[in-house]
Amino acid sequence: MAESMNGLKRSHRCGELSLSNVGETVTVMGWVAKQRNKGGIIFVDLRDRSGILQVIFEESDAGAEGFAKAEKLRSEYVVAVVGKVEKRAGAVNENLATGEIEVRASQVRILSEALTPPFPIEEESKTKEELRLKYRYLDLRRPDLQSKIILRSKITMAIRKFMSEEGFLEIETPMLTKSTPEGARDYLVPSRVHPGNFYALPQSPQIFKQLLMCSGYDRYFQIARCFRDEDLRADRQPEFTQVDMELSFVDVDDVIAVNERLLKFICKDAIGLDVQLPIARMTWQEAMDRFGSDKPDTRFGMELVDVSKTVAGCGFGVFTSALENGGSVRGINAKGQAEMPRKKIDALVEFAKGYGAKGLAYLCVLPDGSYKSSFAKFMTEEQLKALVEAMDAEPGDLLLFAADKNSVVWNVLGGLRLELGRQLNLIDNSKFNFLWITEFPLFEWSEEENRYMAMHHPFTMPMEEDLAMLETEPGKVRAKAYDIVLNGTELGGGSVRISDDKIQERMFEALGFTKESAYERFGFLLDAFKYGVPPHAGLAYGLDRLVMLLTGADSIREVIAFPKVKDASCLMTEAPNVVDQKQLDELGISINPIEEKE
Amino acid sequence: MAESMNGLKRSHRCGELSLSNVGETVTVMGWVAKQRNKGGIIFVDLRDRSGILQVIFEESDAGAEGFAKAEKLRSEYVVAVVGKVEKRAGAVNENLATGEIEVRASQVRILSEALTPPFPIEEESKTKEELRLKYRYLDLRRPDLQSKIILRSKITMAIRKFMSEEGFLEIETPMLTKSTPEGARDYLVPSRVHPGNFYALPQSPQIFKQLLMCSGYDRYFQIARCFRDEDLRADRQPEFTQVDMELSFVDVDDVIAVNERLLKFICKDAIGLDVQLPIARMTWQEAMDRFGSDKPDTRFGMELVDVSKTVAGCGFGVFTSALENGGSVRGINAKGQAEMPRKKIDALVEFAKGYGAKGLAYLCVLPDGSYKSSFAKFMTEEQLKALVEAMDAEPGDLLLFAADKNSVVWNVLGGLRLELGRQLNLIDNSKFNFLWITEFPLFEWSEEENRYMAMHHPFTMPMEEDLAMLETEPGKVRAKAYDIVLNGTELGGGSVRISDDKIQERMFEALGFTKESAYERFGFLLDAFKYGVPPHAGLAYGLDRLVMLLTGADSIREVIAFPKVKDASCLMTEAPNVVDQKQLDELGISINPIEEKE
Repeated sequence: MAESMNGLKRSHRCGELSLSNVGETVTVMGWVAKQRNKGGIIFVDLRDRSGILQVIFEESDAGAEGFAKAEKLRSEYVVAVVGKVEKRAGAVNENLATGEIEVRASQVRILSEALTPPFPIEEESKTKEELRLKYRYLDLRRPDLQSKIILRSKITMAIRKFMSEEGFLEIETPMLTKSTPEGARDYLVPSRVHPGNFYALPQSPQIFKQLLMCSGYDRYFQIARCFRDEDLRADRQPEFTQVDMELSFVDVDDVIAVNERLLKFICKDAIGLDVQLPIARMTWQEAMDRFGSDKPDTRFGMELVDVSKTVAGCGFGVFTSALENGGSVRGINAKGQAEMPRKKIDALVEFAKGYGAKGLAYLCVLPDGSYKSSFAKFMTEEQLKALVEAMDAEPGDLLLFAADKNSVVWNVLGGLRLELGRQLNLIDNSKFNFLWITEFPLFEWSEEENRYMAMHHPFTMPMEEDLAMLETEPGKVRAKAYDIVLNGTELGGGSVRISDDKIQERMFEALGFTKESAYERFGFLLDAFKYGVPPHAGLAYGLDRLVMLLTGADSIREVIAFPKVKDASCLMTEAPNVVDQKQLDELGISINPIEEKE
Repeated sequence: MAESMNGLKRSHRCGELSLSNVGETVTVMGWVAKQRNKGGIIFVDLRDRSGILQVIFEESDAGAEGFAKAEKLRSEYVVAVVGKVEKRAGAVNENLATGEIEVRASQVRILSEALTPPFPIEEESKTKEELRLKYRYLDLRRPDLQSKIILRSKITMAIRKFMSEEGFLEIETPMLTKSTPEGARDYLVPSRVHPGNFYALPQSPQIFKQLLMCSGYDRYFQIARCFRDEDLRADRQPEFTQVDMELSFVDVDDVIAVNERLLKFICKDAIGLDVQLPIARMTWQEAMDRFGSDKPDTRFGMELVDVSKTVAGCGFGVFTSALENGGSVRGINAKGQAEMPRKKIDALVEFAKGYGAKGLAYLCVLPDGSYKSSFAKFMTEEQLKALVEAMDAEPGDLLLFAADKNSVVWNVLGGLRLELGRQLNLIDNSKFNFLWITEFPLFEWSEEENRYMAMHHPFTMPMEEDLAMLETEPGKVRAKAYDIVLNGTELGGGSVRISDDKIQERMFEALGFTKESAYERFGFLLDAFKYGVPPHAGLAYGLDRLVMLLTGADSIREVIAFPKVKDASCLMTEAPNVVDQKQLDELGISINPIEEKE
């Protein structure tokens, strides 16, 4: 039977006590992390969100009744303790912030008893994630998980403080909105009042924030929940949180400048990290050429080298036919890995195939200067030497080459570079390498749709100097778009938006829209832009990912209090779930009979 | 054709300039609010979110091209102007913060042309709301509406600042969650991955915040979007925003104390209002007895008087039969209204009927001391005199009486009091009367379900001193629940929660639940509470309503950027709307054929 606090007031959190409190009578409350009886003295580790505190019970201080209660305490009981802070009699516990003191209990109340948890509440839990997610309310007690959720709260507060000081207004946009057939799959919400009609949950506040610029709000931000009904990859959630912003009367450099200050502020505030400004910038073209990725991890080298010119006209058909088809031959140099066992090299070839390569050519420059290679026999000694030189290779190096159209070569070598970086332990985990990627292509060619698609979205502004090519060479037009990358992960991205309706029309034409079909899709935004629209630009961060990186978490599920799993369900609440027929009737919808699988 | 900013950078917002900037060359950007040519000088009122600035164009400064552009300017064009700040040559405009200065333009760029808006962008717009909501992006340009949206942003920032300084963590809870059959109607979201299953959008984060207490987060808050699929009354929205909080190891007084500091902080920060602490408290019983309402507007008197004892045994059957049936007879005194025309009194009687009264008895104490009354003939002179005395009435007063069971009498006289307060202009609109209502009944009797229902929710803690009556006289048990009221509007409410499973069991029993049915409904929360739960309590505010009151708005639609109308639709986006059949097929749902109305 639980006791009530009955007027007791907590004076301190557990972790707030230190040597400076010695001699004070305090009242602390929390969960029993451990209880042990050692020679007639009961030691209790008391835990709350601030830390762990050692409480000792002796009958002389706690009285017979208090001591008897202390004997009954088990893990996860909730107790209130009144006692005196003392310098620790035993050895100082250096693992605890409160390790130099203890509280000698004079009074104890059991506020709640507890069953034995289905798994131990401990840091770096070995319990499998499914069980922990089912009992998420217990898993959330783990101090290492708690510290991440607490840091997330600190980070969002820092963001808001900064944005508000920079004149951004936080404005809420609707969650029950209209389905737009562009982009990812929408979550739909049936309307009861308008049977047969549906709201959609927002994939982002994009259109609303552009409207707010049109309405003169000048600087908007929002930490907004967004929804995408996509099949979940490792680090995706059906609902996720976006730090969303939009600014009027600005160009690329203005957006970058304010976001650099934001990132510096957050990093300092949240994890005490000094970010040096300005953050490095790299064009999309350079990022692809050097790292085979538009979100390069620059914490290590092993950059791509274009050897197309060097191997042009060599006898190796894989290389030359790639070149003839307009592609390229590029390589990376795995320094000192010449003696990598064949089995491991074969595994790399398989890895590369997973990234779209037909194969992977390798050349080991052995310590004695001789070569072991999959393709040496197709080349002259001179050609091989030129290739080795082009790759800046020394005896002991392993060279890996891909030959295909550029997009495949980049993808393969970009992936391989990261894989080798991990395998060979080349990545300095203490580094926080921020990087802007700029000048993205405006379009990407879709084989599937046989037309150009907007790489960002159809409202992205082309670079002025490329405007003339919009009709003639759309593939070469660069956009006023930018991504911010941290250690090889895209934290966020954005663009300057088109605010000139003539350019917007040309953009839609380039995308293959008629005026009518464009209007059908983006009607009320286009309407709005007829009544005076300022130049504007914006950016959005994935908050879950940002917090994951700053807290050093392995997964976004560690920085979300109640995450969902891969099939988009919540193991704790068992959502989604069946509902009453009455609810469906009110909404005027029916569940389709399940088709038999053939 | 719009011009680009082309490197121009804004130096100031319009409203930021003052006499101290005289002589500076500035670059301002904004919307043309007005343009007029007066004797070869063009005057432009330039508007941005900070205010309005007068810009003057003369050919001598702006050049022929610049002047020609200025001539072309029309309302809502977006322009950039470079010019020099000067002391105003003409009369100071005292309506403008920038009324002492003007900017003499040397350069102008037209960043965007504009069609003539469908209604004028002006303060206190007379345009009907439907049209303004369709063009919400234009309506949102009105300075009076903008100032409310801006103040909302300021208020939420103040809330977050305060909460964070008081050790509250902002923790996001899921939007895609499980439907609970208790409470209002849920918005449902069909699951594509689990056909036939549905998520529900949260009506509040109640269960999640209690779980967070169970997980040791100690102090939680969130400014959270909530959803209720109810038929909308005047000031309801299908999605609304709640300032939600929960605290561990606290009792009623702790929650009240922190919220008083919060309210004081917000009011000071947002509208410069000093709230005197402590805020007055009133028990639910006293509020009903004195004001006939659990959210009394205490800005004026006209309190209810219980005259049951005075009229007991009188000859007026309406009074005596109400008393015989366990009800009461109560009245209000409309001071000085004895000569109210019969027609107006009749209208009050009709008004009272709308609140559930069978009728309304009145007694005018005429200036000469004689009575005009609907019931005087049933009473002796002595009885009437006693009644007049009990009502503290003087010649010239109008007394209005209701006789019925208490709940009806309170409702009728509470409503009538507010109506008379408005009609007679008794309400001092400069007052901000905060008030705590405490000691709510734990249960209310439901005629419909023929059982007691939880007045707040089934996890609300009874007052310790009433625990013994839980089984014997549940109707008399008071709850540890509290509401905060401002000027007759409920701003928020909350309670201490049950954290003792024995009391929780008794509570469910009193509500007529079996153990099994309770578990079916509230399973994972009850599970969680088996593993050690701290005493905890919380409170939630309706943010939209709070902002409405603090900004002096007439409707919550004025403090929501993109609100919905009564039928839960958005006139701008036309959500909800039809969706592609493909989307429904993927979700495995069908729309029921519409039944013919008979």
